Amino acid sequence: MSRPAHRRPEYHKINKDLFVLTYGALVAQLCKDYEKDEDVNQYLDKMGYGIGTRLVEDFLARSCVGRCHSYSEIIDIIAQVAFKMYLGITPSVTCNNSSKNEFSLILEKNPLVEFVEELPAGRSSLCYCNLLCGIIRGALEMVHLAADVTFLQDRLKGHNPGVLFIPDESTKPRTGITVSPSVDLILYVITLSMPGGG
Amino acid sequence: MSRPAHRRPEYHKINKDLFVLTYGALVAQLCKDYEKDEDVNQYLDKMGYGIGTRLVEDFLARSCVGRCHSYSEIIDIIAQVAFKMYLGITPSVTCNNSSKNEFSLILEKNPLVEFVEELPAGRSSLCYCNLLCGIIRGALEMVHLAADVTFLQDRLKGHNPGVLFIPDESTKPRTGITVSPSVDLILYVITLSMPGGG
Repeated sequence: MSRPAHRRPEYHKINKDLFVLTYGALVAQLCKDYEKDEDVNQYLDKMGYGIGTRLVEDFLARSCVGRCHSYSEIIDIIAQVAFKMYLGITPSVTCNNSSKNEFSLILEKNPLVEFVEELPAGRSSLCYCNLLCGIIRGALEMVHLAADVTFLQDRLKGHNPGVLFIPDESTKPRTGITVSPSVDLILYVITLSMPGGG
Repeated sequence: MSRPAHRRPEYHKINKDLFVLTYGALVAQLCKDYEKDEDVNQYLDKMGYGIGTRLVEDFLARSCVGRCHSYSEIIDIIAQVAFKMYLGITPSVTCNNSSKNEFSLILEKNPLVEFVEELPAGRSSLCYCNLLCGIIRGALEMVHLAADVTFLQDRLKGHNPGVLFIPDESTKPRTGITVSPSVDLILYVITLSMPGGG
Protein backbone atom coordinates (compact mmCIF):
# COMPACT_ATOMS: atom_id res chain seq x y z
CA MET A 1 0.00 0.00 0.00
CA SER A 2 1.16 3.52 -0.62
CA ARG A 3 2.62 5.74 2.05
CA PRO A 4 0.21 8.36 3.44
CA ALA A 5 1.13 11.90 2.42
CA HIS A 6 1.86 13.04 5.97
CA ARG A 7 4.59 10.41 6.33
CA ARG A 8 6.60 11.74 3.40
CA PRO A 9 10.25 11.26 4.41
CA GLU A 10 13.19 13.46 3.55
CA TYR A 11 14.85 13.00 0.21
CA HIS A 12 17.79 10.81 1.26
CA LYS A 13 20.31 10.19 -1.45
CA ILE A 14 22.33 7.02 -1.58
CA ASN A 15 25.15 5.50 -3.57
CA LYS A 16 23.63 3.37 -6.31
CA ASP A 17 25.88 0.31 -6.02
CA LEU A 18 23.80 -1.51 -3.42
CA PHE A 19 20.75 -1.08 -5.63
CA VAL A 20 22.62 -2.24 -8.72
CA LEU A 21 23.89 -5.39 -6.97
CA THR A 22 20.49 -6.13 -5.43
CA TYR A 23 18.90 -5.81 -8.85
CA GLY A 24 21.44 -8.31 -10.15
CA ALA A 25 20.44 -10.72 -7.38
CA LEU A 26 16.79 -10.31 -8.36
CA VAL A 27 17.48 -11.08 -12.02
CA ALA A 28 19.61 -14.09 -11.03
CA GLN A 29 16.76 -15.39 -8.88
CA LEU A 30 14.26 -15.04 -11.73
CA CYS A 31 16.66 -16.86 -14.04
CA LYS A 32 16.66 -19.72 -11.53
CA ASP A 33 12.86 -19.68 -11.39
CA TYR A 34 12.08 -19.41 -15.10
CA GLU A 35 13.71 -21.49 -17.77
CA LYS A 36 12.70 -19.30 -20.72
CA ASP A 37 14.21 -15.85 -21.16
CA GLU A 38 10.84 -14.59 -22.39
CA ASP A 39 9.27 -15.53 -19.07
CA VAL A 40 12.00 -13.72 -17.12
CA ASN A 41 11.57 -10.66 -19.36
CA GLN A 42 7.82 -10.72 -18.90
CA TYR A 43 8.15 -11.10 -15.14
CA LEU A 44 10.63 -8.23 -14.88
CA ASP A 45 8.28 -6.04 -16.90
CA LYS A 46 5.32 -7.01 -14.70
CA MET A 47 7.34 -6.40 -11.53
CA GLY A 48 8.51 -3.05 -12.90
CA TYR A 49 4.92 -2.13 -13.71
CA GLY A 50 3.98 -2.64 -10.05
CA ILE A 51 6.98 -0.58 -8.92
CA GLY A 52 6.14 2.20 -11.39
CA THR A 53 2.56 2.49 -10.15
CA ARG A 54 3.86 3.06 -6.61
CA LEU A 55 6.90 5.14 -7.46
CA VAL A 56 4.96 7.73 -9.44
CA GLU A 57 3.18 9.08 -6.39
CA ASP A 58 6.46 9.87 -4.64
CA PHE A 59 7.98 11.12 -7.85
CA LEU A 60 5.21 13.65 -8.41
CA ALA A 61 5.37 14.79 -4.78
CA ARG A 62 9.15 15.20 -4.80
CA SER A 63 9.80 16.52 -8.27
CA CYS A 64 7.03 19.15 -8.12
CA VAL A 65 6.56 18.89 -11.89
CA GLY A 66 3.52 20.68 -13.27
CA ARG A 67 0.90 19.40 -15.68
CA CYS A 68 2.32 18.36 -19.03
CA HIS A 69 0.64 19.36 -22.25
CA SER A 70 2.37 17.15 -24.78
CA TYR A 71 3.92 13.73 -25.12
CA SER A 72 7.35 15.23 -25.57
CA GLU A 73 7.10 17.21 -22.32
CA ILE A 74 6.31 13.98 -20.48
CA ILE A 75 9.20 12.12 -22.06
CA ASP A 76 11.56 15.00 -21.24
CA ILE A 77 10.51 14.82 -17.59
CA ILE A 78 11.09 11.06 -17.51
CA ALA A 79 14.56 11.55 -19.00
CA GLN A 80 15.71 14.69 -17.24
CA VAL A 81 14.04 14.40 -13.84
CA ALA A 82 13.04 10.78 -13.16
CA PHE A 83 16.14 9.05 -14.57
CA LYS A 84 18.36 11.60 -12.83
CA MET A 85 16.54 11.10 -9.54
CA TYR A 86 16.44 7.30 -9.51
CA LEU A 87 19.45 6.22 -11.58
CA GLY A 88 21.70 9.28 -11.48
CA ILE A 89 21.81 9.65 -15.27
CA THR A 90 20.11 11.78 -17.92
CA PRO A 91 19.34 9.94 -21.16
CA SER A 92 19.06 11.99 -24.31
CA VAL A 93 15.74 11.89 -26.14
CA THR A 94 14.92 11.66 -29.81
CA CYS A 95 11.46 11.83 -31.30
CA ASN A 96 11.04 9.21 -33.96
CA ASN A 97 7.95 10.08 -35.95
CA SER A 98 5.95 12.95 -37.34
CA SER A 99 3.05 12.32 -34.95
CA LYS A 100 5.49 13.02 -32.09
CA ASN A 101 4.35 10.11 -29.99
CA GLU A 102 7.31 7.75 -30.45
CA PHE A 103 10.53 8.44 -28.61
CA SER A 104 13.90 6.88 -27.92
CA LEU A 105 15.60 7.38 -24.56
CA ILE A 106 19.30 6.95 -25.28
CA LEU A 107 21.43 5.89 -22.29
CA GLU A 108 25.11 6.48 -22.97
CA LYS A 109 25.83 4.65 -19.73
CA ASN A 110 23.49 2.25 -17.99
CA PRO A 111 24.26 2.01 -14.27
CA LEU A 112 22.14 -1.14 -13.88
CA VAL A 113 24.73 -3.19 -15.77
CA GLU A 114 27.85 -1.73 -14.18
CA PHE A 115 28.66 -5.01 -12.47
CA VAL A 116 27.62 -7.14 -15.45
CA GLU A 117 30.16 -8.01 -18.12
CA GLU A 118 27.89 -10.22 -20.19
CA LEU A 119 24.63 -12.14 -20.04
CA PRO A 120 24.73 -15.55 -18.32
CA ALA A 121 25.42 -18.53 -20.59
CA GLY A 122 22.33 -19.67 -22.49
CA ARG A 123 20.49 -16.45 -21.68
CA SER A 124 21.01 -14.59 -24.93
CA SER A 125 17.39 -13.38 -25.12
CA LEU A 126 17.33 -12.00 -21.59
CA CYS A 127 16.37 -8.32 -21.37
CA TYR A 128 18.40 -7.72 -18.23
CA CYS A 129 16.99 -4.24 -17.60
CA ASN A 130 13.38 -5.00 -18.52
CA LEU A 131 12.29 -3.74 -15.11
CA LEU A 132 12.84 -0.22 -16.49
CA CYS A 133 10.30 -0.78 -19.28
CA GLY A 134 7.71 -1.93 -16.76
CA ILE A 135 8.42 0.97 -14.39
CA ILE A 136 7.90 3.58 -17.13
CA ARG A 137 4.76 1.79 -18.36
CA GLY A 138 3.33 1.57 -14.83
CA ALA A 139 4.17 5.16 -13.93
CA LEU A 140 2.64 6.48 -17.17
CA GLU A 141 -0.50 4.44 -16.66
CA MET A 142 -0.99 6.08 -13.26
CA VAL A 143 -1.18 9.43 -15.01
CA HIS A 144 -3.69 7.90 -17.46
CA LEU A 145 -1.26 7.59 -20.31
CA ALA A 146 -1.03 4.19 -21.99
CA ALA A 147 2.36 3.39 -23.49
CA ASP A 148 4.39 0.58 -24.99
CA VAL A 149 7.96 0.54 -23.70
CA THR A 150 10.58 -1.80 -25.13
CA PHE A 151 14.30 -1.95 -25.80
CA LEU A 152 15.56 -0.87 -29.15
CA GLN A 153 19.20 -1.55 -28.35
CA ASP A 154 20.95 -3.26 -25.45
CA ARG A 155 24.72 -3.65 -25.41
CA LEU A 156 24.38 -6.73 -23.21
CA LYS A 157 22.32 -8.40 -25.91
CA GLY A 158 25.06 -7.72 -28.42
CA HIS A 159 23.03 -5.26 -30.45
CA ASN A 160 25.23 -3.53 -32.91
CA PRO A 161 25.34 0.15 -32.12
CA GLY A 162 25.63 2.77 -34.78
CA VAL A 163 22.60 2.92 -37.02
CA LEU A 164 19.33 1.81 -35.46
CA PHE A 165 16.18 0.87 -37.24
CA ILE A 166 12.96 1.95 -35.67
CA PRO A 167 9.36 1.53 -36.72
CA ASP A 168 7.81 4.64 -38.22
CA GLU A 169 4.11 4.79 -37.54
CA SER A 170 3.23 6.75 -40.65
CA THR A 171 4.86 4.52 -43.22
CA LYS A 172 5.35 1.16 -41.44
CA PRO A 173 8.74 0.45 -43.04
CA ARG A 174 11.62 0.94 -40.63
CA THR A 175 13.74 4.07 -40.65
CA GLY A 176 17.29 4.49 -39.43
CA ILE A 177 18.83 6.89 -36.93
CA THR A 178 22.48 7.20 -36.08
CA VAL A 179 23.70 7.03 -32.50
CA SER A 180 27.08 7.00 -30.83
CA PRO A 181 28.68 3.53 -30.78
CA SER A 182 29.25 3.93 -27.03
CA VAL A 183 25.53 3.82 -26.24
CA ASP A 184 24.63 1.16 -23.66
CA LEU A 185 20.88 1.06 -23.91
CA ILE A 186 18.03 2.61 -25.83
CA LEU A 187 14.50 2.51 -24.52
CA TYR A 188 11.74 2.93 -27.04
CA VAL A 189 8.54 4.57 -25.80
CA ILE A 190 5.36 4.78 -27.84
CA THR A 191 2.71 6.84 -26.13
CA LEU A 192 -0.67 5.54 -27.13
CA SER A 193 -3.20 7.88 -25.61
CA MET A 194 -3.38 11.05 -23.58
CA PRO A 195 -6.48 12.03 -21.60
CA GLY A 196 -8.24 15.19 -22.69
CA GLY A 197 -6.07 15.43 -25.79
CA GLY A 198 -3.66 17.59 -23.75
CA MET B 1 33.08 -10.63 -11.47
CA SER B 2 34.45 -7.45 -9.96
CA ARG B 3 34.91 -4.27 -11.91
CA PRO B 4 38.50 -3.52 -12.91
CA ALA B 5 39.97 -0.56 -11.00
CA HIS B 6 40.40 1.58 -14.10
CA ARG B 7 36.67 1.45 -14.80
CA ARG B 8 35.74 2.98 -11.46
CA PRO B 9 32.72 5.20 -12.23
CA GLU B 10 31.78 8.44 -10.57
CA TYR B 11 29.98 8.32 -7.29
CA HIS B 12 26.45 8.81 -8.60
CA LYS B 13 23.90 9.42 -5.92
CA ILE B 14 20.29 8.40 -6.35
CA ASN B 15 17.01 8.63 -4.53
CA LYS B 16 16.55 5.43 -2.55
CA ASP B 17 12.90 4.72 -3.39
CA LEU B 18 13.57 2.69 -6.53
CA PHE B 19 15.99 0.52 -4.56
CA VAL B 20 13.52 0.11 -1.69
CA LEU B 21 10.70 -0.96 -4.02
CA THR B 22 12.98 -3.28 -6.00
CA TYR B 23 14.08 -4.90 -2.76
CA GLY B 24 10.41 -5.41 -1.88
CA ALA B 25 9.91 -7.14 -5.24
CA LEU B 26 12.87 -9.40 -4.51
CA VAL B 27 11.51 -10.43 -1.11
CA ALA B 28 8.06 -11.02 -2.61
CA GLN B 29 9.60 -13.27 -5.26
CA LEU B 30 11.48 -15.30 -2.64
CA CYS B 31 8.26 -15.67 -0.63
CA LYS B 32 6.68 -17.15 -3.75
CA ASP B 33 9.63 -19.49 -4.21
CA TYR B 34 10.06 -20.70 -0.64
CA GLU B 35 7.24 -21.84 1.58
CA LYS B 36 9.14 -21.59 4.88
CA ASP B 37 10.14 -18.20 6.29
CA GLU B 38 13.40 -19.73 7.49
CA ASP B 39 14.32 -20.62 3.90
CA VAL B 40 13.57 -17.08 2.70
CA ASN B 41 15.62 -15.66 5.57
CA GLN B 42 18.49 -17.97 4.78
CA TYR B 43 18.36 -17.14 1.08
CA LEU B 44 18.31 -13.40 1.76
CA ASP B 45 21.32 -13.78 4.03
CA LYS B 46 23.16 -15.84 1.41
CA MET B 47 22.30 -13.34 -1.33
CA GLY B 48 23.41 -10.47 0.92
CA TYR B 49 26.68 -12.29 1.62
CA GLY B 50 27.41 -12.37 -2.12
CA ILE B 51 26.54 -8.69 -2.46
CA GLY B 52 28.71 -7.78 0.54
CA THR B 53 31.74 -9.56 -0.89
CA ARG B 54 31.44 -7.46 -4.06
CA LEU B 55 30.38 -4.20 -2.48
CA VAL B 56 33.32 -4.03 -0.08
CA GLU B 57 35.83 -3.45 -2.86
CA ASP B 58 33.99 -0.36 -4.07
CA PHE B 59 33.33 0.76 -0.53
CA LEU B 60 37.00 0.70 0.38
CA ALA B 61 37.94 2.51 -2.82
CA ARG B 62 35.31 5.22 -2.40
CA SER B 63 35.33 5.75 1.34
CA CYS B 64 39.14 5.96 1.60
CA VAL B 65 38.99 4.55 5.14
CA GLY B 66 42.31 3.58 6.66
CA ARG B 67 43.28 0.40 8.46
CA CYS B 68 41.21 -0.25 11.57
CA HIS B 69 42.84 -1.36 14.80
CA SER B 70 39.88 -2.48 16.85
CA TYR B 71 36.47 -4.10 16.47
CA SER B 72 34.77 -0.89 17.56
CA GLU B 73 36.53 1.17 14.87
CA ILE B 74 35.24 -1.25 12.24
CA ILE B 75 31.68 -1.14 13.54
CA ASP B 76 31.80 2.67 13.65
CA ILE B 77 32.83 2.74 10.00
CA ILE B 78 30.00 0.38 9.06
CA ALA B 79 27.51 2.59 10.90
CA GLN B 80 28.81 6.05 10.07
CA VAL B 81 30.23 5.57 6.57
CA ALA B 82 28.74 2.46 4.95
CA PHE B 83 25.14 2.83 6.16
CA LYS B 84 25.24 6.53 5.29
CA MET B 85 26.62 5.81 1.84
CA TYR B 86 24.27 2.99 0.86
CA LEU B 87 21.09 3.61 2.84
CA GLY B 88 21.34 7.31 3.69
CA ILE B 89 21.12 6.74 7.45
CA THR B 90 23.54 6.57 10.38
CA PRO B 91 22.64 3.96 13.01
CA SER B 92 23.86 4.52 16.53
CA VAL B 93 26.17 1.89 18.00
CA THR B 94 26.30 0.31 21.43
CA CYS B 95 28.92 -2.13 22.61
CA ASN B 96 27.32 -4.96 24.49
CA ASN B 97 30.06 -6.77 26.37
CA SER B 98 33.28 -6.29 28.22
CA SER B 99 35.33 -8.02 25.52
CA LYS B 100 34.17 -5.28 23.15
CA ASN B 101 33.37 -7.61 20.30
CA GLU B 102 29.56 -7.57 20.43
CA PHE B 103 27.71 -4.56 19.10
CA SER B 104 24.22 -3.37 18.34
CA LEU B 105 23.54 -1.12 15.37
CA ILE B 106 20.38 0.76 16.25
CA LEU B 107 18.35 2.05 13.29
CA GLU B 108 15.83 4.67 14.40
CA LYS B 109 14.42 4.55 10.89
CA ASN B 110 14.85 1.72 8.44
CA PRO B 111 14.47 2.94 4.86
CA LEU B 112 14.13 -0.61 3.52
CA VAL B 113 10.66 -0.93 5.07
CA GLU B 114 9.35 2.51 4.17
CA PHE B 115 6.78 1.06 1.79
CA VAL B 116 5.95 -1.88 4.06
CA GLU B 117 3.20 -1.54 6.66
CA GLU B 118 3.35 -5.13 7.91
CA LEU B 119 4.64 -8.56 7.00
CA PRO B 120 2.56 -10.59 4.51
CA ALA B 121 -0.10 -12.87 6.02
CA GLY B 122 1.35 -16.12 7.35
CA ARG B 123 4.91 -14.76 7.18
CA SER B 124 5.39 -13.84 10.83
CA SER B 125 8.91 -15.32 10.98
CA LEU B 126 10.16 -13.50 7.91
CA CYS B 127 13.26 -11.36 8.51
CA TYR B 128 12.37 -8.87 5.79
CA CYS B 129 15.73 -7.08 5.91
CA ASN B 130 17.91 -10.15 6.29
CA LEU B 131 19.87 -9.11 3.22
CA LEU B 132 21.57 -6.51 5.45
CA CYS B 133 22.91 -9.22 7.79
CA GLY B 134 24.40 -11.09 4.85
CA ILE B 135 25.91 -7.96 3.34
CA ILE B 136 27.71 -7.04 6.57
CA ARG B 137 28.85 -10.64 7.06
CA GLY B 138 30.14 -10.87 3.48
CA ALA B 139 31.88 -7.50 3.57
CA LEU B 140 33.58 -8.29 6.89
CA GLU B 141 34.74 -11.67 5.61
CA MET B 142 36.46 -9.96 2.69
CA VAL B 143 38.59 -8.05 5.19
CA HIS B 144 39.29 -11.36 6.98
CA LEU B 145 36.96 -10.73 9.87
CA ALA B 146 34.46 -13.48 10.66
CA ALA B 147 31.23 -12.26 12.22
CA ASP B 148 27.74 -13.36 13.16
CA VAL B 149 25.11 -10.81 12.19
CA THR B 150 21.48 -11.18 13.23
CA PHE B 151 18.47 -9.08 14.16
CA LEU B 152 17.88 -8.28 17.77
CA GLN B 153 14.74 -6.26 17.15
CA ASP B 154 12.59 -5.71 14.09
CA ARG B 155 9.45 -3.57 14.26
CA LEU B 156 7.97 -5.52 11.35
CA LYS B 157 8.22 -8.71 13.38
CA GLY B 158 6.32 -7.08 16.21
CA HIS B 159 9.26 -7.03 18.58
CA ASN B 160 8.42 -4.91 21.54
CA PRO B 161 10.77 -1.96 21.67
CA GLY B 162 11.93 -0.43 24.91
CA VAL B 163 14.11 -2.79 26.88
CA LEU B 164 16.06 -5.33 24.87
CA PHE B 165 17.71 -8.44 26.16
CA ILE B 166 21.00 -9.36 24.67
CA PRO B 167 23.38 -12.20 25.35
CA ASP B 168 26.36 -11.26 27.50
CA GLU B 169 29.37 -13.34 26.62
CA SER B 170 30.92 -13.19 30.08
CA THR B 171 27.97 -14.37 32.13
CA LYS B 172 25.68 -16.13 29.60
CA PRO B 173 22.47 -14.85 31.21
CA ARG B 174 20.86 -12.09 29.17
CA THR B 175 21.24 -8.45 30.07
CA GLY B 176 18.92 -5.59 29.22
CA ILE B 177 19.56 -2.27 27.48
CA THR B 178 17.04 0.48 27.02
CA VAL B 179 16.38 1.95 23.60
CA SER B 180 13.92 4.47 22.23
CA PRO B 181 10.50 2.95 21.50
CA SER B 182 10.64 4.48 18.02
CA VAL B 183 13.51 2.21 16.94
CA ASP B 184 12.75 0.31 13.72
CA LEU B 185 15.53 -2.22 13.64
CA ILE B 186 18.53 -3.37 15.63
CA LEU B 187 21.30 -5.39 14.04
CA TYR B 188 23.44 -7.46 16.34
CA VAL B 189 27.02 -8.00 15.28
CA ILE B 190 29.42 -10.37 17.02
CA THR B 191 32.92 -10.14 15.65
CA LEU B 192 34.58 -13.50 16.00
CA SER B 193 38.13 -13.04 14.87
CA MET B 194 40.48 -10.35 13.67
CA PRO B 195 43.70 -11.05 11.79
CA GLY B 196 46.86 -10.05 13.55
CA GLY B 197 45.01 -9.46 16.78
CA GLY B 198 44.54 -5.83 15.68
